[in-house]
Amino acid sequence: MIDVALLGCGGSMPMVNRYLSSTLIQYNGRKCLIDCGEGTQVAMRHLGWGFKSIDLICLTHLHGDHIFGLPGLLSTIGNCGREDSLTMIGPTGLVSLFQDLKVLLPYLPYEIIYYEAPKIYEVNDMEIKTLPLHHSLPCLGYSFKIKRKPMFDTKKAESYLIPKKWWNELQKGKTITDNGTVYTPDMVLGKDRNGLKISIITDTRPIETIPPFIQNSDILICEGTYGDDADLEKAMKNKHMTFREAAQLAKVGEVAEMILTHFSPSLSEPDLYLKNALEEFSETIIGTDLMVKTMKFKKK
Amino acid sequence: MIDVALLGCGGSMPMVNRYLSSTLIQYNGRKCLIDCGEGTQVAMRHLGWGFKSIDLICLTHLHGDHIFGLPGLLSTIGNCGREDSLTMIGPTGLVSLFQDLKVLLPYLPYEIIYYEAPKIYEVNDMEIKTLPLHHSLPCLGYSFKIKRKPMFDTKKAESYLIPKKWWNELQKGKTITDNGTVYTPDMVLGKDRNGLKISIITDTRPIETIPPFIQNSDILICEGTYGDDADLEKAMKNKHMTFREAAQLAKVGEVAEMILTHFSPSLSEPDLYLKNALEEFSETIIGTDLMVKTMKFKKK
Repeated sequence: MIDVALLGCGGSMPMVNRYLSSTLIQYNGRKCLIDCGEGTQVAMRHLGWGFKSIDLICLTHLHGDHIFGLPGLLSTIGNCGREDSLTMIGPTGLVSLFQDLKVLLPYLPYEIIYYEAPKIYEVNDMEIKTLPLHHSLPCLGYSFKIKRKPMFDTKKAESYLIPKKWWNELQKGKTITDNGTVYTPDMVLGKDRNGLKISIITDTRPIETIPPFIQNSDILICEGTYGDDADLEKAMKNKHMTFREAAQLAKVGEVAEMILTHFSPSLSEPDLYLKNALEEFSETIIGTDLMVKTMKFKKK
Repeated sequence: MIDVALLGCGGSMPMVNRYLSSTLIQYNGRKCLIDCGEGTQVAMRHLGWGFKSIDLICLTHLHGDHIFGLPGLLSTIGNCGREDSLTMIGPTGLVSLFQDLKVLLPYLPYEIIYYEAPKIYEVNDMEIKTLPLHHSLPCLGYSFKIKRKPMFDTKKAESYLIPKKWWNELQKGKTITDNGTVYTPDMVLGKDRNGLKISIITDTRPIETIPPFIQNSDILICEGTYGDDADLEKAMKNKHMTFREAAQLAKVGEVAEMILTHFSPSLSEPDLYLKNALEEFSETIIGTDLMVKTMKFKKK
């Protein structure tokens, strides 16, 4: 079971009723945070999932509304007793930025390991991919693929005459050598099963590399800075998207569901413009602060 | 008329129901902000007094809970259209910190002028003084004295035979030369009148230089990180104060009223410990987020 929480749905500035857009993925008790504007730690307190088990922070880009909450959050993670290292992924410029910011965080009790714009990063059962987006400075889209372990295949295990005492460890992925015979996990495991895919696309203009990148996502969390079609020019100038443009990407990318987020402070009622997205892609919903989606693996 | 708003009353970390301690003074439509932890700009949006007219930011010290909101607030002030320079006062280390932080704020549309630990700073009708406190790093207490202009003294003006046409300008403080005769403002103005004094003391252990510094304040906003007397050892270790210690300073300093603030995250109900302060100083109140005090000059 995977929980995905939208910590906030605003762009540019934190507002009284809207935190800055940030997403928290919880899987097997571990957490991955995507973006961290000012106030993200307060939104996390509202959510109540804790701070210590954030293993990974992914930054889309280095604009203030996506990073100004980092000094406070990193301090709070330390105050919560984290000592294990934490991984941070972000665009080119990440390492240099944090060298400058060290002055704000002289006493963190854990190490931060940085990866600048890796195409792919694997951790536990999650495969993370990045895609360069088209914004006013280097920006990354992310996809998170949570793999699903194959079922244990008793018949297969028996057909290889594997002693029962090794079944458990083989299922866990270990290779066993027993009296010169080598048993591998594939000898006890069934077919690959569908995992789950979450994609996060913000901030960007629509570009043709996005649909193949988000292809078949179970959830696409996508920026829709402007709701009104009439704001297209503004969207083009500020390197953002309208709801309609985001929905067109979702449609071509054949995602199961799209959640719009990163609304402009001027967009006080995003619901009023949902129809613009629905005309392009019917499985669109408007993100709201602290919205939580619980995702389950499909039966097959 | 002067408005003083407590934007938040928390120390250490912003909480769901308590912003970090920060104070906003509004006088003649201009604003002065003291400290700026993460989320201060959200508290300011709740208050609704605007951002553009903040002329002065005073920092007590450079711990995260007093400064992590600055990058976001300074950006927002810029987004609100400020072009006039802004003054920032803080302890030793301020200039060096902001040189490192420039990377976060590459496009501010206004200049920031820094003053490190000035003993005194005057702006318009306000006299600001600082006092070195005793915390775990350089820290300043502040007093803000808002001067009150003397009354116009008609009899005095007449006794100097000053032509009526100059009365208005002399009252405003201008010196006039008329046919070789020099008229000065003191020739039309009455006695000095009592102004108002606001003192802010956070974060610190109690030290003997505090009472003379806060002497006769109309309002003292003072840290009381711990409410329980039993937390004295913790207060000593972390260089903070208990309610009782703060109240003892207020009493010796003969202030009119003390508002306690900067409560530890562990102190969920400060009201429970108010009696510890009242035993020392009866004019103590517990600060709450967005509390506003409107101060008027006394009649004399």
